Amino acid sequence: VTRPDRGAVFLLTDYGESDEFAGLTRAVILRLAPEAQVVDLSHGVPPFDVRAGALMLSRSVVFLGPGVVVAVVDPGVGSGRRAVAVSVRGIEAGGGPRHLVGPDNGLLGGAIEILGGAEAAVALPPASAAPAGTGAPGTFDGRDLFGPVAARLWLGATLNDVGMPIDPGSLVRLPAPVSRVVPGAVEAEVLWVDRFGNVQLAAGPAQGEEAGLGGVVEISVGGARWKGRRGGSFAGLEEGEVGLMVDANGRLALVCRQRSAATVLGVRPGEIVILSRVR
Amino acid sequence: VTRPDRGAVFLLTDYGESDEFAGLTRAVILRLAPEAQVVDLSHGVPPFDVRAGALMLSRSVVFLGPGVVVAVVDPGVGSGRRAVAVSVRGIEAGGGPRHLVGPDNGLLGGAIEILGGAEAAVALPPASAAPAGTGAPGTFDGRDLFGPVAARLWLGATLNDVGMPIDPGSLVRLPAPVSRVVPGAVEAEVLWVDRFGNVQLAAGPAQGEEAGLGGVVEISVGGARWKGRRGGSFAGLEEGEVGLMVDANGRLALVCRQRSAATVLGVRPGEIVILSRVR
Amino acid sequence: VTRPDRGAVFLLTDYGESDEFAGLTRAVILRLAPEAQVVDLSHGVPPFDVRAGALMLSRSVVFLGPGVVVAVVDPGVGSGRRAVAVSVRGIEAGGGPRHLVGPDNGLLGGAIEILGGAEAAVALPPASAAPAGTGAPGTFDGRDLFGPVAARLWLGATLNDVGMPIDPGSLVRLPAPVSRVVPGAVEAEVLWVDRFGNVQLAAGPAQGEEAGLGGVVEISVGGARWKGRRGGSFAGLEEGEVGLMVDANGRLALVCRQRSAATVLGVRPGEIVILSRVR
Repeated sequence: VTRPDRGAVFLLTDYGESDEFAGLTRAVILRLAPEAQVVDLSHGVPPFDVRAGALMLSRSVVFLGPGVVVAVVDPGVGSGRRAVAVSVRGIEAGGGPRHLVGPDNGLLGGAIEILGGAEAAVALPPASAAPAGTGAPGTFDGRDLFGPVAARLWLGATLNDVGMPIDPGSLVRLPAPVSRVVPGAVEAEVLWVDRFGNVQLAAGPAQGEEAGLGGVVEISVGGARWKGRRGGSFAGLEEGEVGLMVDANGRLALVCRQRSAATVLGVRPGEIVILSRVR
Repeated sequence: VTRPDRGAVFLLTDYGESDEFAGLTRAVILRLAPEAQVVDLSHGVPPFDVRAGALMLSRSVVFLGPGVVVAVVDPGVGSGRRAVAVSVRGIEAGGGPRHLVGPDNGLLGGAIEILGGAEAAVALPPASAAPAGTGAPGTFDGRDLFGPVAARLWLGATLNDVGMPIDPGSLVRLPAPVSRVVPGAVEAEVLWVDRFGNVQLAAGPAQGEEAGLGGVVEISVGGARWKGRRGGSFAGLEEGEVGLMVDANGRLALVCRQRSAATVLGVRPGEIVILSRVR
Repeated sequence: VTRPDRGAVFLLTDYGESDEFAGLTRAVILRLAPEAQVVDLSHGVPPFDVRAGALMLSRSVVFLGPGVVVAVVDPGVGSGRRAVAVSVRGIEAGGGPRHLVGPDNGLLGGAIEILGGAEAAVALPPASAAPAGTGAPGTFDGRDLFGPVAARLWLGATLNDVGMPIDPGSLVRLPAPVSRVVPGAVEAEVLWVDRFGNVQLAAGPAQGEEAGLGGVVEISVGGARWKGRRGGSFAGLEEGEVGLMVDANGRLALVCRQRSAATVLGVRPGEIVILSRVR
């Protein structure tokens, strides 16, 4: 008997799928909450890349139903960084996840904001010893801490049942990505290169309009320059042409038709792209 | 409460698992149909490779229980290609999926045929705006169109509830792969190289018999030639020897024992292999 | 209606996720047992690497709830190797999986031992013909044999319902990994290099103590030598420094802070590492 009224437990980590890290996180959640649905958002965040994980979570949360989010990208595991569980105000009554669990390193920040802001937060006590007394606590918190806490919250525990209250204002936040309008141009950080090579920028269409970008734009990355065409879809592009479109998250994105725009442009997340008006 | 009587929602895409594409498709289906089982067949189709996706789906559907199949390999996303939902006659009463949802680009064709042919088909209206008004419709149809339509069909909607009727005969079909018997030989296209390097051919054992292939065959690819041994299993092969066997889909396949036959032969999907009688 | 009281079906294979092998194994289990939860531990065992699969399974089983484990890493598929189902005594009443299913090649041995030892075992008859009469039996046993048998056991079948009794003592066992204390040093085999490059050794902290390893150790692999620091966590390490810690499975592990220790040390599974006392 699953309990769909309680929603799902959503997982987003940098664990990959080659090892058993993601699988054991799933398994311990279901051992404690056998009626839960566990939904893998992705375990493919690049190892230790908190920023990439935070962006992926921010792109995702608005589409999720009710439940608990577990996010683990945690280069500071075993250090003094706090482990936290946070309740959010929610976008609207009944919609979306109400709890997020993970390390307090900025990973959760953007998602919390999108979900209406933090209502309350607790610091989690360190994981207790693993079963059978083997295994050092603090080295695999998905299995030993975050997964079990998420299961308890899904089962109905309150934040105060799982940790000690902290000031939600004290949660670590990542700096906002670069995105600004200068005369006739937009400077924007590359947020994400997806499997297909599409290049998502921090800027949105409003900034493109403010800069007066027209049907043709100059794209400059480092010293190199390309011409790009503004358009509504992949299909309108010529073979090899670079397009500038609004993507599925409402961001400006550089794309090619059935090719990797990231490879064509030689660009990676974190780099700055300048889009300038041509005509 | 899952509803096993309604079966599952099966997913097959080229989304990969590094990004959140597959995860959000799962999540939106479960948001709309929390009692559904979502079963990932694979998200590892090579990007944009409609043919590989169609072959994978054709190999799979006969093994599936009841439910709805969502397949997305969609280089034409955002173009004029139709999005469709199709009901099939079914292999036998009660068995196998009854609905398939995806782009009308040939991806679904082989599976529809295996499932008894199309009973009816509808064209889906474009995705409406994404939640919160952000995101361009038509760029992530798994999340915005195919996933939600599959959830509705799983919940009991009819084809006419989700789209406008079209002639099932107008659905796009891919050309059949090359597979022919010539005197003393079989010419066959490579359909698939799997993770283990096994090379599946378009031909079946009946064609091998028709060509009179015996216990030893000559395998020729491009200008190169190998000797291969016909047999029933991997285990009968010597180290490094190439074998010709009937695989788990009833196709002829070139295999090595614990090695990649594709690497040994230097062969890739789409290439033509000629199997000639030696003795 | 899922039946959480019956637990889950846990999957661990070398099938990868690029092909439909793992997906079809999931699908056939759910077709036969629609109320089951199928939990993927991992499908990322390196192809044919029985030892790596056995170690992964051994690391995992103590964390699993009740249910049935299906493990498939099977270079001998199609040979005379037996296919088996095994019931275990269990770690404690009610806890952990009670049945394991897979090839009799050593893959299951360590897990069986951890789960209290084999209570009974049966040899499985070969897979019957695949649906629609296509497909050679014995080439895809996850789909045709192990998955269906696991579903039957989950549904309540007994071992004797699915196979012929064999002596549990006759099950194939892998040799134990190298791990020994010599004066002032520990010699230990590398068991596992994880996604993050952490290097798990066969030795545990008790062996480190027996050898008198202090705060600084010499690590030697092949002819090369490094200095390493013993510590409790990643966070205490300097940039680029190699640490020796107890990992999440209670083994000694060589680690770096946010870097791959395996790359730094140039070490792979199966190699021998010597840890010597410095001070």
